[in-house]
Amino acid sequence: MIVVLKRGATADMIRKMVARVEDLGLKAHVIEGTERTVIAAVGEERDKREESLASCEEVEQVLPILAPYKIASKETKPEPTVVRVRDLTIGGGHIGMIAGPCAVESEAQILEAARAVKAAGAKGLRGGAFKPRTSPYAFQGLKEEGLKLLAAARDATGLAVVTEVMTPHLVELVAKYADVLQIGARNMQNYHLLQAVGEVRKPVLLKRGPSATIEEFLLAAEYILDQGNQEVILCERGVRTFESHTRFTLPLATVPYLHERTHLPVIVDPSHGTGIASLVPPMCAAAVAVGADGLIVEVHPDPKVALSDGKQSLTPDAFAETMAQCKRVADALGYTLS
Amino acid sequence: MIVVLKRGATADMIRKMVARVEDLGLKAHVIEGTERTVIAAVGEERDKREESLASCEEVEQVLPILAPYKIASKETKPEPTVVRVRDLTIGGGHIGMIAGPCAVESEAQILEAARAVKAAGAKGLRGGAFKPRTSPYAFQGLKEEGLKLLAAARDATGLAVVTEVMTPHLVELVAKYADVLQIGARNMQNYHLLQAVGEVRKPVLLKRGPSATIEEFLLAAEYILDQGNQEVILCERGVRTFESHTRFTLPLATVPYLHERTHLPVIVDPSHGTGIASLVPPMCAAAVAVGADGLIVEVHPDPKVALSDGKQSLTPDAFAETMAQCKRVADALGYTLS
Amino acid sequence: MIVVLKRGATADMIRKMVARVEDLGLKAHVIEGTERTVIAAVGEERDKREESLASCEEVEQVLPILAPYKIASKETKPEPTVVRVRDLTIGGGHIGMIAGPCAVESEAQILEAARAVKAAGAKGLRGGAFKPRTSPYAFQGLKEEGLKLLAAARDATGLAVVTEVMTPHLVELVAKYADVLQIGARNMQNYHLLQAVGEVRKPVLLKRGPSATIEEFLLAAEYILDQGNQEVILCERGVRTFESHTRFTLPLATVPYLHERTHLPVIVDPSHGTGIASLVPPMCAAAVAVGADGLIVEVHPDPKVALSDGKQSLTPDAFAETMAQCKRVADALGYTLS
Amino acid sequence: MIVVLKRGATADMIRKMVARVEDLGLKAHVIEGTERTVIAAVGEERDKREESLASCEEVEQVLPILAPYKIASKETKPEPTVVRVRDLTIGGGHIGMIAGPCAVESEAQILEAARAVKAAGAKGLRGGAFKPRTSPYAFQGLKEEGLKLLAAARDATGLAVVTEVMTPHLVELVAKYADVLQIGARNMQNYHLLQAVGEVRKPVLLKRGPSATIEEFLLAAEYILDQGNQEVILCERGVRTFESHTRFTLPLATVPYLHERTHLPVIVDPSHGTGIASLVPPMCAAAVAVGADGLIVEVHPDPKVALSDGKQSLTPDAFAETMAQCKRVADALGYTLS
Repeated sequence: MIVVLKRGATADMIRKMVARVEDLGLKAHVIEGTERTVIAAVGEERDKREESLASCEEVEQVLPILAPYKIASKETKPEPTVVRVRDLTIGGGHIGMIAGPCAVESEAQILEAARAVKAAGAKGLRGGAFKPRTSPYAFQGLKEEGLKLLAAARDATGLAVVTEVMTPHLVELVAKYADVLQIGARNMQNYHLLQAVGEVRKPVLLKRGPSATIEEFLLAAEYILDQGNQEVILCERGVRTFESHTRFTLPLATVPYLHERTHLPVIVDPSHGTGIASLVPPMCAAAVAVGADGLIVEVHPDPKVALSDGKQSLTPDAFAETMAQCKRVADALGYTLS
Repeated sequence: MIVVLKRGATADMIRKMVARVEDLGLKAHVIEGTERTVIAAVGEERDKREESLASCEEVEQVLPILAPYKIASKETKPEPTVVRVRDLTIGGGHIGMIAGPCAVESEAQILEAARAVKAAGAKGLRGGAFKPRTSPYAFQGLKEEGLKLLAAARDATGLAVVTEVMTPHLVELVAKYADVLQIGARNMQNYHLLQAVGEVRKPVLLKRGPSATIEEFLLAAEYILDQGNQEVILCERGVRTFESHTRFTLPLATVPYLHERTHLPVIVDPSHGTGIASLVPPMCAAAVAVGADGLIVEVHPDPKVALSDGKQSLTPDAFAETMAQCKRVADALGYTLS
Repeated sequence: MIVVLKRGATADMIRKMVARVEDLGLKAHVIEGTERTVIAAVGEERDKREESLASCEEVEQVLPILAPYKIASKETKPEPTVVRVRDLTIGGGHIGMIAGPCAVESEAQILEAARAVKAAGAKGLRGGAFKPRTSPYAFQGLKEEGLKLLAAARDATGLAVVTEVMTPHLVELVAKYADVLQIGARNMQNYHLLQAVGEVRKPVLLKRGPSATIEEFLLAAEYILDQGNQEVILCERGVRTFESHTRFTLPLATVPYLHERTHLPVIVDPSHGTGIASLVPPMCAAAVAVGADGLIVEVHPDPKVALSDGKQSLTPDAFAETMAQCKRVADALGYTLS
Repeated sequence: MIVVLKRGATADMIRKMVARVEDLGLKAHVIEGTERTVIAAVGEERDKREESLASCEEVEQVLPILAPYKIASKETKPEPTVVRVRDLTIGGGHIGMIAGPCAVESEAQILEAARAVKAAGAKGLRGGAFKPRTSPYAFQGLKEEGLKLLAAARDATGLAVVTEVMTPHLVELVAKYADVLQIGARNMQNYHLLQAVGEVRKPVLLKRGPSATIEEFLLAAEYILDQGNQEVILCERGVRTFESHTRFTLPLATVPYLHERTHLPVIVDPSHGTGIASLVPPMCAAAVAVGADGLIVEVHPDPKVALSDGKQSLTPDAFAETMAQCKRVADALGYTLS
């Protein structure tokens, strides 16, 4: 349930209410809105005693949370969550652009990519150091060396680094270098991993699994939120369907559908969503038009020699052109893409 | 194969080449481009003798058509096909807007709808007179009476009428009233029907079947083209996937993917593609941004009382607002939406 | 609603009740069960007056039909429908085996196929004379000539002929030669065609569309039943999913699921359902084990030279071996496969 | 590549060949067949030098492995892998039956379930102690306490315990109690987890992910095999499709398809595959008929009060009846189900 505190509730009043909620065996998540503070009280069991909270003086009202994703729900927090890290702003009308290669391959490659996407206007740098690969015999990433190269690229450009973490015991290591921790589509329901990144105080970019329903997606986010990390960025990256001409089927309706249900920002990955470089620019423009809070795009200095995903990577020139198109659409619709 | 005639080939030369192609047991489709005329020669069998055409004086070259959809392929005709009917223009940078109710219900309803969508800028009026319904016990449309009401709405507004025909023996009747013949998704592979509309000289709006591959979609168009009707408008209206929060999954990447392969115009139906009215406006904007040549949108004067598809129909006000958004996106990207 | 007549209702009483039902603007379908007769009264509108039927002397009770598929529902007729044509029996514990080539190609081919499948124990002969083909340039069947060859094969073997009809105006022609009219998967929602075969007094084999839900499938059957043809055989032939290693995904759970809801018999097509000859025999055995009322299997005297679907056709020897396996499973579970 | 040693190769010869393979920078997997020993040499890079192995005296031939799943492929090991643990035998014509509740709920519940499934003929006991749940607020299992109860049930019945492990750091703990480690569908591509169970010397039951292709499935198995654990049991448990009347769509054709490609045993989970208890018995019979090497079935002493998956759980009586049916089918087809 949501405990809505009266306007002007003091820090002390909030602390006391948290204690009362916890006394009921529930977890208390304090969410400070622009107008008032609410406490989301969630947990396995609920009973009549909980409603006793409604009688507390500092409480304005107690509302049930109907959605199964309690903290992610707009019922709990109607205003959009805005994630800010370095110059990257995602949500609340701000379109955050993240770009870079599929995998970090070398210092020269990641630096060149970082400079190119920065020049085109991106504020975030993507690049895989730990790569989940379908085959155990495929290139698995440069691992910690890759993380160091990403950090160096950040030092050189100021871009926020977005990179994937694949397993709980590596969360600490990846968090040391990354600005945003990415959970890949294959791990969307790796619950121990979700809990582990939920304990970190860095934003998490959560990719939708290729056959996840929207409710499963939001409940995966809830695993992170429930650990106290409130900066979750949802990412639609395509679902698996009978369509085989594209790598996945990219359903942009996810974006407004999620916006109606959650305050979390929603970005789109047209590179994995289509798997074909020539389709990425129009799908970027479409994602901006549909209301996405950001994009994550694969850009490689030389896609032909990429160690992974070359087929879907844009050249720096194509990316610059794409950014210009996206900016025109954003301007036309009143979004900020800077 | 494609027989490319030399520049300045006369009508007589074309006629002779057609005869030679037909002598080889092939069908000849004359396609007049802006620069030169080509003859697409298609049929079940091909052999060496066909290549003899290459030696004819008026022939510049003979090229194989690699795609299985011979006439629909860009190999045969690189320039986009533009369909024009009344004030509705679809293709070649022109975004044609078609709107109206799911079904024609009454004279008052269709007239009110027609006036409203015309006022908002639409150039085509949709409305079902013969309705394919999942249940035999559901409202099946006003049939010929509905066609007459559509024609009256056209007389009152000048809008081009787009309406569905469900079976070969009704093609003549529907064509008497309609400006554009619609083939519904359920009938995308109803080959006798495709052939029947292929014999008419009115544009055909062909909806993609909910589990059709792109190749199947283009080959369905080919059945129409092969009968001599070259005005086929392709319509993406969503595919059936595991996603159940939307009525269908609407894959906008279809639009640029088709544009790379066919000269036929491609429009989008966000109403059936999502099934939820609140998702239609952002998906309209996205469809324009991705490069769609048109939209077909369900608009009902009073969606709450609609006999079918009320849940996905826009009110006239919402449609007017949607048109304004689409226009802003079209302007930003250099498309004409007027 | 279902009007259940008292035991021993006479023909005259039935006639009168039908008249009363029709007076209410409803269609009356008389269904004679083993114990008593019921009248399914279906139509668009229902009101209080209908309940007045309950007060008639000859009526035992009036029950609502909750399922949207009124006549197909087990609520209307709990006992299984058994379809019998020549020696082919489908339903009620009888497993009917239908086999033969994808398409009729020549007299020699269809005769050889018919003799082979007959020798192996099949009672029905499949073979396409009118072939729905994805491409307009592919072999479209021998048409009426093919029907004549099928009839000749029937004369030679006594097998019941099962063949497809694709469009309403050909129903009469096909019905002249066929014992069972097949509606292909592409035409499952071709409602005019369903109504046309509903008017014929020959059994109809209705294939499930590749993306049809079970409710859509049963409502398609309902279009046929609603015209008075009560001999509909449902056929699961695979659905379209992301799986591409098989031609379709064949969900055998459809069989018991349908048996819980409808009295109509359900058969399985493992040839189209898998598209790979080596998978057909084990899937035949599985279909028998799951409770299918029959199988329809592609068998070609020489699959390598088949004009269509050679990849999924069994040789006569493989089919004979498959029949033996199926018989063993049927015997083990108490079904009749003879 | 596969290095096929000559018949009668001694342990010493094998050891030397392994060393030579490793000198080439490849991993050597020794696979002892019934007739001869082969060494699968796998790794990222391959070159000419590898072929030099062919010239070694003890080598009969060196063959490339065409499949991307090197160790899982039948090219590497044509004979079926048989997994034996306690009385449970899976593969090579032996159908292993695993049954039990979704989750361990209490000592009484798991003991009652274990005794019931044992009485019906099962040789393996399933039961979740660590439960991956879609919602963070749902029952997550009894954890180590659950493992202890499973071990107690094994002590009481002799059944082999099959239970899930969700994250690498718990592998050691779960392996302490379990006989077979289960990897759930959500974790099929959790590569660190696959590698962790690959290091254990206990059989692994790997469930197919709901949108995994067959190649992805086999490559996930390859991650385990590549760590040296050769006892991987593949489990088809249904894929996610547009079908919503069943929980998942269960494609039994997976079984023979996999048998053509891999030596690993393949079992089926009709409980998750359908999600509806009444469909489980016929799908069990079908799975046996299609050639499955085993079944894993949810059985609960009282499904109505189950903490999870009650809707798809069989009662002990229904399970006993199902076992009898399966045995009849197995006997009819010459498989051993004891």
